[in-house]
Amino acid sequence: MGTMQAAVVHAFGEDLSIDTVTIPTPGPGQALVKLVTSGVCHTDLHAAQGDWPVKPNPPFIPGHEGVGEVVALGDGVTNLHVGQLVGNAWLFSACGECEYCNTGWETLCEKQQNGGYSIDGSFGQYMLVDARYAAIIPEGADPVEVAPVLCAGVTVYKGLKMTETKPGQWVVISGIGGLGHVAVQYARAMGMRVAAVDIADDKLALAKQHGAEVVVNALEGDPGEAILAQTGGAHGVLVTAVHPSAFGQAIHMTRRGGTIVFNGLPAGDFPASIFEIVLKGLTVRGSIVGTRQDMTEALDFYARGLIHPTVATRELGDINAVFDEMKHGKIDGRVVIQY
Amino acid sequence: MGTMQAAVVHAFGEDLSIDTVTIPTPGPGQALVKLVTSGVCHTDLHAAQGDWPVKPNPPFIPGHEGVGEVVALGDGVTNLHVGQLVGNAWLFSACGECEYCNTGWETLCEKQQNGGYSIDGSFGQYMLVDARYAAIIPEGADPVEVAPVLCAGVTVYKGLKMTETKPGQWVVISGIGGLGHVAVQYARAMGMRVAAVDIADDKLALAKQHGAEVVVNALEGDPGEAILAQTGGAHGVLVTAVHPSAFGQAIHMTRRGGTIVFNGLPAGDFPASIFEIVLKGLTVRGSIVGTRQDMTEALDFYARGLIHPTVATRELGDINAVFDEMKHGKIDGRVVIQY
Amino acid sequence: MGTMQAAVVHAFGEDLSIDTVTIPTPGPGQALVKLVTSGVCHTDLHAAQGDWPVKPNPPFIPGHEGVGEVVALGDGVTNLHVGQLVGNAWLFSACGECEYCNTGWETLCEKQQNGGYSIDGSFGQYMLVDARYAAIIPEGADPVEVAPVLCAGVTVYKGLKMTETKPGQWVVISGIGGLGHVAVQYARAMGMRVAAVDIADDKLALAKQHGAEVVVNALEGDPGEAILAQTGGAHGVLVTAVHPSAFGQAIHMTRRGGTIVFNGLPAGDFPASIFEIVLKGLTVRGSIVGTRQDMTEALDFYARGLIHPTVATRELGDINAVFDEMKHGKIDGRVVIQY
Amino acid sequence: MGTMQAAVVHAFGEDLSIDTVTIPTPGPGQALVKLVTSGVCHTDLHAAQGDWPVKPNPPFIPGHEGVGEVVALGDGVTNLHVGQLVGNAWLFSACGECEYCNTGWETLCEKQQNGGYSIDGSFGQYMLVDARYAAIIPEGADPVEVAPVLCAGVTVYKGLKMTETKPGQWVVISGIGGLGHVAVQYARAMGMRVAAVDIADDKLALAKQHGAEVVVNALEGDPGEAILAQTGGAHGVLVTAVHPSAFGQAIHMTRRGGTIVFNGLPAGDFPASIFEIVLKGLTVRGSIVGTRQDMTEALDFYARGLIHPTVATRELGDINAVFDEMKHGKIDGRVVIQY
Repeated sequence: MGTMQAAVVHAFGEDLSIDTVTIPTPGPGQALVKLVTSGVCHTDLHAAQGDWPVKPNPPFIPGHEGVGEVVALGDGVTNLHVGQLVGNAWLFSACGECEYCNTGWETLCEKQQNGGYSIDGSFGQYMLVDARYAAIIPEGADPVEVAPVLCAGVTVYKGLKMTETKPGQWVVISGIGGLGHVAVQYARAMGMRVAAVDIADDKLALAKQHGAEVVVNALEGDPGEAILAQTGGAHGVLVTAVHPSAFGQAIHMTRRGGTIVFNGLPAGDFPASIFEIVLKGLTVRGSIVGTRQDMTEALDFYARGLIHPTVATRELGDINAVFDEMKHGKIDGRVVIQY
Repeated sequence: MGTMQAAVVHAFGEDLSIDTVTIPTPGPGQALVKLVTSGVCHTDLHAAQGDWPVKPNPPFIPGHEGVGEVVALGDGVTNLHVGQLVGNAWLFSACGECEYCNTGWETLCEKQQNGGYSIDGSFGQYMLVDARYAAIIPEGADPVEVAPVLCAGVTVYKGLKMTETKPGQWVVISGIGGLGHVAVQYARAMGMRVAAVDIADDKLALAKQHGAEVVVNALEGDPGEAILAQTGGAHGVLVTAVHPSAFGQAIHMTRRGGTIVFNGLPAGDFPASIFEIVLKGLTVRGSIVGTRQDMTEALDFYARGLIHPTVATRELGDINAVFDEMKHGKIDGRVVIQY
Repeated sequence: MGTMQAAVVHAFGEDLSIDTVTIPTPGPGQALVKLVTSGVCHTDLHAAQGDWPVKPNPPFIPGHEGVGEVVALGDGVTNLHVGQLVGNAWLFSACGECEYCNTGWETLCEKQQNGGYSIDGSFGQYMLVDARYAAIIPEGADPVEVAPVLCAGVTVYKGLKMTETKPGQWVVISGIGGLGHVAVQYARAMGMRVAAVDIADDKLALAKQHGAEVVVNALEGDPGEAILAQTGGAHGVLVTAVHPSAFGQAIHMTRRGGTIVFNGLPAGDFPASIFEIVLKGLTVRGSIVGTRQDMTEALDFYARGLIHPTVATRELGDINAVFDEMKHGKIDGRVVIQY
Repeated sequence: MGTMQAAVVHAFGEDLSIDTVTIPTPGPGQALVKLVTSGVCHTDLHAAQGDWPVKPNPPFIPGHEGVGEVVALGDGVTNLHVGQLVGNAWLFSACGECEYCNTGWETLCEKQQNGGYSIDGSFGQYMLVDARYAAIIPEGADPVEVAPVLCAGVTVYKGLKMTETKPGQWVVISGIGGLGHVAVQYARAMGMRVAAVDIADDKLALAKQHGAEVVVNALEGDPGEAILAQTGGAHGVLVTAVHPSAFGQAIHMTRRGGTIVFNGLPAGDFPASIFEIVLKGLTVRGSIVGTRQDMTEALDFYARGLIHPTVATRELGDINAVFDEMKHGKIDGRVVIQY
């Protein structure tokens, strides 16, 4: 029943304030976690700004890439133990009973709770997790490096699966930011050939370093044509970029019969050429975060040394500055708060 | 080397003229077919008007739902025989060597020829077919009724497959015209539960007669809401309608994780809500006609008595009147020319 | 804390005795159900005889096709209500946390409990169910007719899915007993073409009545050759027969690239021709019962009037006689106990 | 119309004789190839011994891993040119018209011709290829090293695909011979985790060198138990071993829901435990060579430097000695004849 420091959203679009709040008590099936690190995701910014149709209810604490140590267990928790390192995630919990939960698609559960959105998250010294849905951090993990895997990692890993790109085929990662630079690494570890598209040469250089064979600066001519010329057309495209033009470009760079997956959540409508989608037999698909099984797998790739997010550490008090840098596209890779 | 009557497009947007032209001679691998019937497809109208980015070269003869008797074989044809009833199709031929042809996706072949578009079609007394790609008309088929199966039938049959709707799940057929009223029948024969959406009550009545359990008039309130309320959300949606509003409605009426297939080829771009596609984990897909295997299967459903297109017969000389009725949405089911 | 009558196995291979036992008390997450009917499955006989490597622990009450009314709820049950009609199933419960449970494959959970096997079942006036896993009986269901759907129905429905037979393709149902005669009906409702193989003409007549287009008596010549001749080879084969010869016959009657699913659990090894499996590119697969989602779907087919198991009702006191008839293959369709 | 040296089978089970025979003339659609190298496959030995139910007709020339230069084209060949490096394969040609050919499953075509079996093969200075089915050797390929890719490579590559093992999951390669040691490399390149089972420590050492994380000597205890203990159970198993015991071991070492693929063609029946297959929900599948698309992909992995078969070169005159060594299991990796 002590207190902790946390970054709290009091009103959409205003600065978060670092408040002293009561440490929460774990209910049945929950665990209390003392945070060590937390990644900062673009979704946290959307939450704080109230950008999306379904909004969180201020005051609330954002954050869904938190890594910490279990310090207390609620009633009935048997699968976690005090001292264990766990994480929270966007999928804080799901109902466990609906057609989606029963078929391995809990990410589509209509009754899901979302970490740092409908439930307080990891931008504080303590947080709650639902024991059934908490991510188990693999032994030996670096708490700073592993944090972005909890959302950026699992999201692109699942997104890459949904492109149905097979080992040896070409996937394009469109947008080499917090998600995209991790996506390049997962794609390589999954045996895909990787092309990267961005508008910043330093990000393309990072993609190359992580194994992209082809890099295209979308400011230098038509990226669709460039990808077609250098790969024969992508089998899969993972769009992490949120700029409207990325939509049409992705359709154009895809090989007939290929699949485009959207991993971001831009507001607004984007123009789609049905004619090209039909003539080329394309599949366009949305993919959001990942299930517990996806999380286990995404963390396993990390634990095997195949994934190294680019991270810069900051303190919780910097959160407003970090959001400001995020808005202006000044962040390379991922910012991780250390407690 | 005799002559025949055929409906010829001399200039886009002008009336077709019924000309006396030379009967073509089958080249190697081709057969000459004396036509009995030919369906009239919306694509024929698009061809005659030059609506699409890639255009045919006038003068040409449209038509790709032709049924007739083989009267002569070109060199090297061993799989057809004189007297046999065959059909042409949109997929007149493909290269047989590319990655698409080699993997059962000849409909995506970049070197394909299209009947009545890049090659003369079935709006004449005789036509050529490529023996490898000609449809084999099942014994006992009614040449009038089977004609629409060659394009409308195979297109919706393949489109329904691509929705990945399983037996017992809900599929929505959006648009109950030449394609849609056949789609309802295929969907029922494939064990799906069917909901139909259109703006004409008589077409919805036809859908009901063919087994649709739910019918929704899109002019009476939001069809997305109506489908959600009556089915819990569609597992699959087959969009044969080409009105721009059908796009957003389809996204809205689909259950999370569901699949929307576009079967038509409207020009122009349509607005897509990426947010809804991602949040609901939807798949949006284009599907165009079908392969030879799809054709064999689509015809087999017909031969088993499960598919009965609504047809009205006309003469070749009526073709301009038929196109005019088509433009004004006055056609129920399919018009079939009888020779 | 009252008492009830139940059929209890005290020792493997001996007659069950109808005992007066204490009505069980529902624990947390459980419900107490007053039985109306219970199907009798071959597995109950295997349980009572201790036929399988992993055995139940006598004394125990068999039965996993029980239908009854909820009369009391244990702690924390929110998804059921008193008065509701529910069923038990072979999959009494699963762990809800393992890789199988998390991916829609709870039927493979290594910690599952099995109704009437590791947990007391439906051969008594009352039984417990796990509220998360109890089958919800659709409104309007006939408690006698629906009982066999809870095991026979869901098992063959899932098995048919696993054959990957598409609508319009041929599936062979090998063995037209308690499972097989229901399988014919599901296969037809799923749009498949059905061939039936058995050694009894009356069972083949029943298959025909339920829509089988081809029937083959395996005693009259080689059933593999007969199926090949009449269907061109099965796309899928569902083997519900447990006779050793059914294995090789199934391999022989399958079209290249086809899939054979075993739905029964015979003891012992059976000879497989690897050469034929490889040369024909066959898939051989085991399938056991179904998940909750499969159950919901299987019951939905029943609720839509598409499935009518052949049933004969008996009393609980007849259970040893029923087992005796089962051993001697004298049962047509399914025996259902009425309470 | 000159002559060449070739190794000819005159009678099953007898030594091949090195004869002077007429150089064949390419028919329509064929090309004449002057050989540079040819791998020696176990199937060549089976052919020469007449081991299988369907036998070749002596006299014939075995060999289906031949690499050589096109020196003459038959009528109508447009996709190859003189001077180009091509290969033959087990799938010499297929009909191009059946349901298998039309759906990307030409390896199941019932009218296929097989190189070095039903058609003369690569154990001579010249051979014919069907231009539509000849493998295109990538630029820069080493003719010695690439030869085994034409059969061993494509066979295991396709077999691995058929195990449906995903990147990051465990696959067991059972048997580290000519096929198995290449399979380890493909599996690693496809992102799988690899365990190897063999009875020879030097072969297991080779597997380890190619990236196997777990190696198990099947002579030292139960290999099924060892794999379960070290991997939690294989998601996929590729059985290249032909010893009868490999069958049951594979079933035992597979995780529930996993897939076992047989890549070899042993004569005789093997015992299968249906009970274990059903209870564990296993899939057992046969896979034989690969299609042209599989070949293109398998060669592409080689061209990218990811596959290095272990090869030892010999002369054509050594063929009987090579077969003798093969019979006694004395060959490491693959023997390649140099012309």
